[in-house]
Formats: sequence, structure tokens, C-alpha cells
Amino acid sequence: MLVNSRVVRIEWGDCDPAGIVYYPRYFAFFDACTSALLERALGMTKHHYLKAYDFAGHPLVNARSRFLIPTRFGDDVTIETSVTEIKRSSFQITHLLKKADGALGVEGFETRVWTGRDPADPSKIRSRPIPAEVIEKLSRS
Amino acid sequence: MLVNSRVVRIEWGDCDPAGIVYYPRYFAFFDACTSALLERALGMTKHHYLKAYDFAGHPLVNARSRFLIPTRFGDDVTIETSVTEIKRSSFQITHLLKKADGALGVEGFETRVWTGRDPADPSKIRSRPIPAEVIEKLSRS
Amino acid sequence: MLVNSRVVRIEWGDCDPAGIVYYPRYFAFFDACTSALLERALGMTKHHYLKAYDFAGHPLVNARSRFLIPTRFGDDVTIETSVTEIKRSSFQITHLLKKADGALGVEGFETRVWTGRDPADPSKIRSRPIPAEVIEKLSRS
Amino acid sequence: MLVNSRVVRIEWGDCDPAGIVYYPRYFAFFDACTSALLERALGMTKHHYLKAYDFAGHPLVNARSRFLIPTRFGDDVTIETSVTEIKRSSFQITHLLKKADGALGVEGFETRVWTGRDPADPSKIRSRPIPAEVIEKLSRS
Repeated sequence: MLVNSRVVRIEWGDCDPAGIVYYPRYFAFFDACTSALLERALGMTKHHYLKAYDFAGHPLVNARSRFLIPTRFGDDVTIETSVTEIKRSSFQITHLLKKADGALGVEGFETRVWTGRDPADPSKIRSRPIPAEVIEKLSRS
Repeated sequence: MLVNSRVVRIEWGDCDPAGIVYYPRYFAFFDACTSALLERALGMTKHHYLKAYDFAGHPLVNARSRFLIPTRFGDDVTIETSVTEIKRSSFQITHLLKKADGALGVEGFETRVWTGRDPADPSKIRSRPIPAEVIEKLSRS
Repeated sequence: MLVNSRVVRIEWGDCDPAGIVYYPRYFAFFDACTSALLERALGMTKHHYLKAYDFAGHPLVNARSRFLIPTRFGDDVTIETSVTEIKRSSFQITHLLKKADGALGVEGFETRVWTGRDPADPSKIRSRPIPAEVIEKLSRS
Repeated sequence: MLVNSRVVRIEWGDCDPAGIVYYPRYFAFFDACTSALLERALGMTKHHYLKAYDFAGHPLVNARSRFLIPTRFGDDVTIETSVTEIKRSSFQITHLLKKADGALGVEGFETRVWTGRDPADPSKIRSRPIPAEVIEKLSRS
């Protein structure tokens, strides 16, 4: 399935007093990488694909990460993001964060749901079937 | 005018590799303090006051801060937030962040505008007059 | 084992354009809750316990979360944090984030290691046995 | 004097429930841009220049920003960062954040100090003269 790669510079402000990445920042990197993957698959920015498919986003129901090697400010890491499974209204994403020497630093796994505003209460969001066109585009390699 | 006080615990994740607060975090603290001041003045949470006064928020047009003494994780600081000026569609806020010994660590000044969705283009926001009731409530001491 | 409870106000700045918590913020909340648990167990702030036990912190090797109900700005949530397992140089933490009505919104699981500076290369950190005194204090209920 | 330019993609997670950048994120962008400027001037990453000049970083004493046009997720903005004044132990930086059409969205001004660990108390930092070599490199155009 689709794979997208992104180089991320680890900044001073991403790091904690131990000098290594403050781990919630990894999830922020991963979230941006998932959007980038969908932007590439769908051929438009998130701002536009939310409108084009008239939905409320793809929030997570599950996140899991393993932290193998710390990264520090000044490191340039590469994050390889891929769709690993697509179901009716959810999909799975894997992120592999690699250090400059190719060593795996962090791996992340996400399950996300395709959502829309609840017609009965627009302040709430509910899962919705992923459009066939989106499934088709995410399934390409 | 109105003053509100908040105790904030500086967390590990608020700090950078020098062990002191990563300064964008001060602005996040200040933003939450401004909301808390308005919540107190208006007697409801931001989620509710945005609806009650049917507006699009109070974004900043100007922010200015002086950083006098660093703070580090584990510090409990007190932030005193006050309305210092109210105009037709904007208002000024001052934040004084004080260390446990009372010393002034950071001072912040904000100019914010009262905004609404642009009727001609709802994706844009425009300044709007602050409701008289809000001006009256922010002017109380 | 030890349990600690914390009330967290969800702020405007914790939320994304969908109006719900931007999920990396949950991990920031959880990290602060783990520190609070250790501070309570050890009777001193993190700033002090890092010095008292002369170690380099307790970074994560594993994080896992399930997101069951979204939270939005203005919500006050309670996070119950407990030590669920202690090994030689690692320990497990569970966080239960509950909404005001008691419903479980998010659950988080962490495996953390006790680390020290590598004597051979102080820019690196290595796992170290958790001091017996710390194990004993974390094991109390 | 030296100018450095950086393209920043505004991410979903940089934005608040109004759909525009949560303003503390601008300061995070600016901080990374200041580091990038110094990295370019000094020819090494921040991780290395902190060691090479044996100092404790360049924290802010003053920050000021004007927010002219909001930016939203999916926007690619260009931040032009320049050194605008250099004194004995402090320097001034200006950031101009421009939208894709060249319009000025945000301008930021920083005063930063060159610091070192206080010999009398290494937990404290003090201002120190900027090395002549650094001044010379920052003064080039």
C-alpha cells in the first residue's frame, strides 16, 4: 500500500531537560505524517480533503509506540509512513522513524476512524464508512 | 478592572534542554489565563461563552513579553491576569508571572480583538464590537 | 500499588480544529501525571528526585493508548495514575482519564526505564536498576 | 546582516478550534528559525555550537509579535529571519512570516542573551560576552 517519507529536523524545543525528544512530540510528528500521507494519496491538502469528502477528520482510537533509540536536537530523522490495513470505517497506519544512519529509533502504530458530524447532534462526531474512492487511493502502492 | 490569579506547576515537558521553560509555553499559559479571566467575568466556560455571545474568539493582534527570571520544572508559579484597557472591539491583558518567593519572573502584554465569522466568507474572521454586557463585566473589579 | 489522581482542565490550546483534544496533548498530560505519582511516592519534586537518586530520568520504551470518548476545551477531566508493575529497571504505569460524569475517555499504558548517564559516554543514557528504596515506595498503596 | 529563510508547513496540530494557528506555535517556529540562522552563521548544528562555544544557550529577554493575517493548516509560509542588532552580550532577531502570496502574516522581534553557567552556582545561568568570532559571523550578509 501507499508509503510516504518525510525528513524531520529535531528542534531544541522538541527536547526536554534530558536533551532528548519529549515523547509527545513524536505523536505530533506522526500526526503530521499521517496527514501528509493522505494529502499525497488524495492529491490535496488536509484543509481541502476535509471539504472534498465532507467529513470531520480521522481521529485515533488507538496509538502504540515503541521507543528504541533516543533522538536529540539537531538530528535529522526520516519518518516512513504507510497504510497497513483498511477496514470499512477505520484504517491502520505504521510510522518508522529512522536515524541518519538508518537505525530504527521509534515505531508507531495508529488505528484511525473516518468520522462525520452526528446529524442528531453536530457537536458530536461519529464513525462513517470510508468513501470507496479514498479506499482505492490509499490502497495504491 | 478584573484580576484573576492562577497557580501553574511547571512540568518537565514545559522545559527545554537547558532545564528552563521553553518560552512558547509561557504564551500557552498566558492564553489559558486570558480564557480563565473571561470565564470568571462571564460566568461560563469558553466553550459556552463562544456560543452565548455567538463569536469566533479573541485572537491576538499583539503580544509582548519580558523574561526576567527563568523558571524550571517543579516550580509553582502564580500568574496574575488583568484587563488593562477595553476599546470598541479590542482589549488589553497583562499577565504577571511570579515565582514562589513573589519575584516577577515574566510579564506579558496582549492586545486581543473580538471577532466573528465574515458574513461574506465564513472561512474568514473579522473584528466585531465587544458586546456592552461583556465590556461591563470585564470592567468590574 | 500507588495511585494518584489529578484534575486537568482541557484548554482551548489543547484542542485542534475539530474542537477536540489534539491527541499528543494526552501524552503530555500523562507524562506530567507519572511525574506527579513519583513525586508523591518519593516525597519531593522531580527536580529534586533526579538529584536525590542521581539518575537521568525515566523515559518511555513503550506507550499505548485507547481513545474512547473525545474531550473538548472547558472539560475538567480526572486522570487516575497507578503503578501496575515494577521490574528490575523498568516499571509500568496505567492512566485512566475520566470525564466529569465518570465515563472513561482515554486509557494509557506506559513502560518506563530507570536510566543513568553512560559512564563511557555521558551524552548517552542507559537503563539502571531501580533503587530498592524507590521500589519499596512505589509498591505502597 | 545575515538573513535565513525557511518554509514551514502549518499542520493541523498547530491550529486551534478556530482553525487558525494557535499563536504560541508561532514562537516555536521563530525559536527554530533563530537556531537555524545561528547554525547557518556558525556552520554547525545547535547541538555542536553549544559545545564549540561552551555556553548555555541564547534565551530570550524580550519577545514581541504582531499578528496581521491568520494562517491555517495546509498553508506553506516562509519565515525570513535576520540579525538586526548585536551588542556585547545580546542580539536582536527579526522574523517576517509571509504567506504564499507574499503578504506579511506575522512579524516577530526577539532580544536574546548569550549565557553561560554561573561559576558560583551551575544551576543558574548568567549573560556572557558574545565571542568575537560569533559576532563577526553574525554580522556577515
